[in-house]
This record gives sequence, structure tokens and C-alpha cells, in this order.
Amino acid sequence: MDTAVSDLNITEVKHVIDVRLEEYCSLRSIAAEQMSPRYGLLWQTLSQLLKAGGKRFRPFMLVTAYKAYSGSETFDAVLPAALAQELIHQAMLVHDDIIDRDIVRYGIKNISGQYNDLYMPLLSDANERAHMTESAALLAGDVLLSDAYQLLSESQIESARLTQATAIFSHSVFEVVGGELLDTENSFLVDEHIPAETIARYKTASYTFISPLTIGAVLGGASTDELQLLKQFSEYVGLGYQLRDDLLGVFGDITITGKSTSGDIAEGKTTYLIEQFEQLAQSEQKAQLARAFHHEQATEAELAEAREALIESGAKQKVEDKITELLTQALELVERLSINDEYKATLQTLASRCLNREY
Amino acid sequence: MDTAVSDLNITEVKHVIDVRLEEYCSLRSIAAEQMSPRYGLLWQTLSQLLKAGGKRFRPFMLVTAYKAYSGSETFDAVLPAALAQELIHQAMLVHDDIIDRDIVRYGIKNISGQYNDLYMPLLSDANERAHMTESAALLAGDVLLSDAYQLLSESQIESARLTQATAIFSHSVFEVVGGELLDTENSFLVDEHIPAETIARYKTASYTFISPLTIGAVLGGASTDELQLLKQFSEYVGLGYQLRDDLLGVFGDITITGKSTSGDIAEGKTTYLIEQFEQLAQSEQKAQLARAFHHEQATEAELAEAREALIESGAKQKVEDKITELLTQALELVERLSINDEYKATLQTLASRCLNREY
Repeated sequence: MDTAVSDLNITEVKHVIDVRLEEYCSLRSIAAEQMSPRYGLLWQTLSQLLKAGGKRFRPFMLVTAYKAYSGSETFDAVLPAALAQELIHQAMLVHDDIIDRDIVRYGIKNISGQYNDLYMPLLSDANERAHMTESAALLAGDVLLSDAYQLLSESQIESARLTQATAIFSHSVFEVVGGELLDTENSFLVDEHIPAETIARYKTASYTFISPLTIGAVLGGASTDELQLLKQFSEYVGLGYQLRDDLLGVFGDITITGKSTSGDIAEGKTTYLIEQFEQLAQSEQKAQLARAFHHEQATEAELAEAREALIESGAKQKVEDKITELLTQALELVERLSINDEYKATLQTLASRCLNREY
Repeated sequence: MDTAVSDLNITEVKHVIDVRLEEYCSLRSIAAEQMSPRYGLLWQTLSQLLKAGGKRFRPFMLVTAYKAYSGSETFDAVLPAALAQELIHQAMLVHDDIIDRDIVRYGIKNISGQYNDLYMPLLSDANERAHMTESAALLAGDVLLSDAYQLLSESQIESARLTQATAIFSHSVFEVVGGELLDTENSFLVDEHIPAETIARYKTASYTFISPLTIGAVLGGASTDELQLLKQFSEYVGLGYQLRDDLLGVFGDITITGKSTSGDIAEGKTTYLIEQFEQLAQSEQKAQLARAFHHEQATEAELAEAREALIESGAKQKVEDKITELLTQALELVERLSINDEYKATLQTLASRCLNREY
């Protein structure tokens, strides 16, 4: 989301967040080191990961909503809450990597990846070693999740608003955990397919958009009506964001996205795109997709034919149309918010960038 | 801890906590079911586990400390904080079971155990199935951990005290995660043994004693000096509790503890008892222990000889002496607290029961 980042003037927020994150990592690493060098090492590994990537997009949204509703030009008071959004995101990524058995994140080895090197001389059995590296990652995610709440509580905001923010925060964790479960089970519970739209609502929209925007707004003093509108806006953008992600996962430019366009097809991910395809495609097109879908060994030619079938069936266009519809709804919704035009424009730019991105 | 439970008049607190827990589980199950029956199922499984066991010992300590310092006879105001102690405990158990690959808890199948049955018809590969059941348990533990903070924030206590309580709470998670990591790594990082006393301090004392007692005290308005004393008390009792656990794991009566006395020896757990043994034992005794220690297939006769060696070396007595010393320190410390005699007696009974229990 680098283009969005610069256009939306996220740089200032990102810089302040990064400084605060650096301080947080350093304090935690020192405290862990005092307990034991081994715990210190987990924190150094975690700190390296936290600093390696992440566009601080969620903190930026929280800060934007806070400024829009509080009328304040500064955001020191909610800086801990903004960092909390980053930590919960990272906690979920660390645990998500365990579930997906990934060992790379932000182009570097993640916790499991780094601990695999560390444990290699001690645990020769690969399964046993994987289990132990995942245990380290499990614990790392736990402490990040816990610290997210600690940071939230440190915000310099009156307690009634903070209590409300905490309730939204925990509700988003409740939802993202449900979304993750449904997504994971979808890969093998083939007879009870949960629609991709449902999963996107809980797994993506909830903690990526609803939580940062509504918490920022609550801390800034927004009314319940405004929160409802922001939530609706977040649902449109969250779903659109996921649909765009699905399209990029099949048709994107790998030199821009950094993500292979064969992965989603070869893994057999039943995205919204695939759901549309199943409704629209003719039997010949279905056979065309089937030769690559859920086949880790599919050839480039088979993958190209599968993409062709997704286009010719009209499924790709259907998803594009849906994204356009969601964007229109999101933009209209922003007009109904009681915030000044500058912030309306920011939210609208945000929505456009998320839904029409190429990266 | 059933004897301690009745002697300490924990019944009332346990009943109130159980009612509140039931309500919590029911609300969460309904909300999850609305998202998807599959998420509803995770919550039903989790609820069953939460209700199957647990003596609500941590909530009782929190309530006791709160009453002692606030002077209040009721504890409605801190009931959410008390339940938070139970949830964080259960979250840690759920994640601990993943690390230890356990599938039974409180005599029933835990999350992994129950999901293994559920996923059996869908995932024939045992490794793949284990991974997916552990993923479900991982997510369940995450949402419990998150909800613990949510509940803590719902306490009807002035915000400055609540902020302080949250800081203690997150510090205890930071410590228990470190303790868990050290304990896990101790099983294979043989060249860098971390003393059992260090692990007991972080893994047991921190969130089992320090967190409930000092949070209850903070919410009740205790001074910093009192908190320091309570923390010291908790460290004595926490370490003593763990040492007693180690002795029961080798010499206990299985009909009372419900825990095999061969497990710790056969698994090769380097407890404080074993550390003492290594300093005291003669070479013949060391050979005696070595025939059973870390040998999953050790015979009953070999185990009996190992126990004999632990006694004759003087190691068992050394641990008993250490427990007596810790209890004496804990009891003396209670006398220095500025609380009334009734609560002093409760804390002293608590310490005695924890350190001299047979179960």
C-alpha cells in the first residue's frame, strides 16, 4: 500500500509510530533480557520482525478518525491506542503464520524461521523442531496480543471512552478469531462452504478497518450514530479490499504485488472470484479451471488457461463490478459523516486506494 | 486444592464466579453461533472445558485481597476482574496443552482432543489433523486471553486503579510467557540449564499468586508498600507451591493427586528436586536414578530405585526443608501487612495449604 501511504500523507504518523514502537521494543527486550538471555532473544527476534515491515496503516486510520472527531491537530493522547492496533495486527500475523506453516514474513525469516536455525543443532528431528519453533511463535504472539491491551489502556483519554474503545477492540478480536477459524476450516470442510464474503467481513473488515476507525472515533468523542456509519463504511471497504486482494492473487503483476499469481489457484482457495465463477461458468470453462485449481503441480500453461476461463466466464468482471459498487457505497457513506471536508477527502482517498490498488 | 478450598471458605466466591462464567460462556456462544455454527461449536467446546474444572482459586485470591484492602464485604465491583484471572489461566492452559501436545484436561478431552474427533472424517492424515486441531486450540486461547482484558476493564473501580491493575496483569503475562519459553527450551537446550527456581518464579508465582493478590489489593486501594509485601509473599508461596508439586510428582499418592508418580522421572524433568539431587548424590545413587530418569520405558522397579536414591541422597529432605523455610517466611510476611486479622489468617491458611498439600 505504498502509493496510498504517500498520497494519504501517512508519513508523519508512520514516523511517530515507528519511534514509539522502537521504544516499546527496546524496553521489552531489556526487561526480557533481565529475566533470561533466552527470553531476551525471543524479544530481539520479535522486535526485528516488528520493524521489518508493516505500513502502520491501522495506526494511521485510528489517528485520522481521532483527529476528525476530536478536532485536535495532535494525536499524542491516542498514540498508545494507535500502536495497540499495530501490535494486535502483528500478533495475529504471528499466529496466522503458525496456522499456515509460513516461515517468511516481510521478506525475512519469521519467528519460526529464525528459531528453526537456532534449534537446528539441538533438535535433529524436523517434526519435533517445527513443533518447538511454533511453540516459541505461539508464545510471542500471546505476549504481543496482551501488550496491545496494555498499550490501549495507556491512552490519555477519559475512562468512559477508553472503556468503550476496549469493548470494540475485544469484539474485533472475537470476530477475527471466528473469521480465521472459518477460513482455516473452509480448506477441508468441503461440504459446508462458508461464503468468502462472510469470512472477509470477520477476518479482514473487522480488525483492519472497523476497529481502527471506530476506536479512533470513540476516543475522539464520536456519537453512536457516527460509529454506525463508520462501521458500515469499514464493511464496504473491508470487503472491497479483500476482493481486490483475490483479483491480484490471480491477475496481479508479480513485479508490483510481490505475490505469485499462481498461488491462490494452485492452493485451491475458494475466493469470492471462484464462487462467482462456479455460478457463471460453462462446463468447458469449469474443466479448464479444474486442471489447475488445487493442483500444486499445475503447469504455467494450465494456470494461464485457468485465468482465461475466469475472464471468459465473466467472473472477473463480476468481481470488478462488485468492487465498483462497494466503492460507490463507501464514498456516498462518507458524505453522510459529520466531519469536516478534509477528513472526508482522506477517507474517500483511502477507500479508492484500497479498492483500486495494483499492489 | 479441594481441602484448601473448603477450609478457606472459597465456596461463596466459587459459586458467584461460576454463575458469572456461565453467563459469559452463554453470551459468547450465542454471538459466535450467529456468526457461524462452526464458530458456535468452538465456543461450546471451550465453554464445556471452562466449566469442567478449575477451583477458581485465582478469583478467590483476588476477591480476598480486594476485601482486605477496601474494607468492603461485597465484591460485585471486582467480579469481572476476578473472572479475568480465571480466563487468563484457562487461556494459558489451552496454549500450554498445544506446547505439551496434551489432549486431556480436567478428565475430559481438551480442544485438540475434541476437534480431533470432529476432523477425523475429513482429514485422514494424522499430522495434518493434529495441526488443524492445534490451530483451533490456538485461536480459542487467543480469544480467551483477549476476553480476560475485556473483563478486567469492566470492573466498577475508579480508572486510576484499573489502569494500575491492567499494568500488573500485562506484566504477569509478559513473565509467564517468558517462564513458559524457558521451561520448554530447558527440555532440549541441555547445555544452558535455567534453574527450576527461576522458572517457578516466572511461570508459577507470577500469574498464579502475584497477579491475583496484587491486582485485588490495587483495586481495593492498597499502597505501594503493601503491594511490595504481597508480591514478596506471593514469591515465597509460588515457589513453595511448585516445589510441593515437584515432590508430589514423584512421591505423591496417585489416589489423591490423580497424577502418576512416574511421569516426572520418566520424562526427565529437571526439577528443583533433581537439581538438589545432583549436588548431593553419590555416584552409586546417580547411577540408580539414571536408569529411570528420562527413560519413558523405565520399569516399576527402576522407578522405585530412583525414588529411593532421591530419598537417600537427602535431596527429598532438602526440598522439604526449603518448603518449610518458604512457609515460615510467608507466614512472617503476612504479619507485616496492614490488613485485619481475619484476612491475615486467610492468607496464612492459604500459604500452609498450598505448601503442605497432598493433592
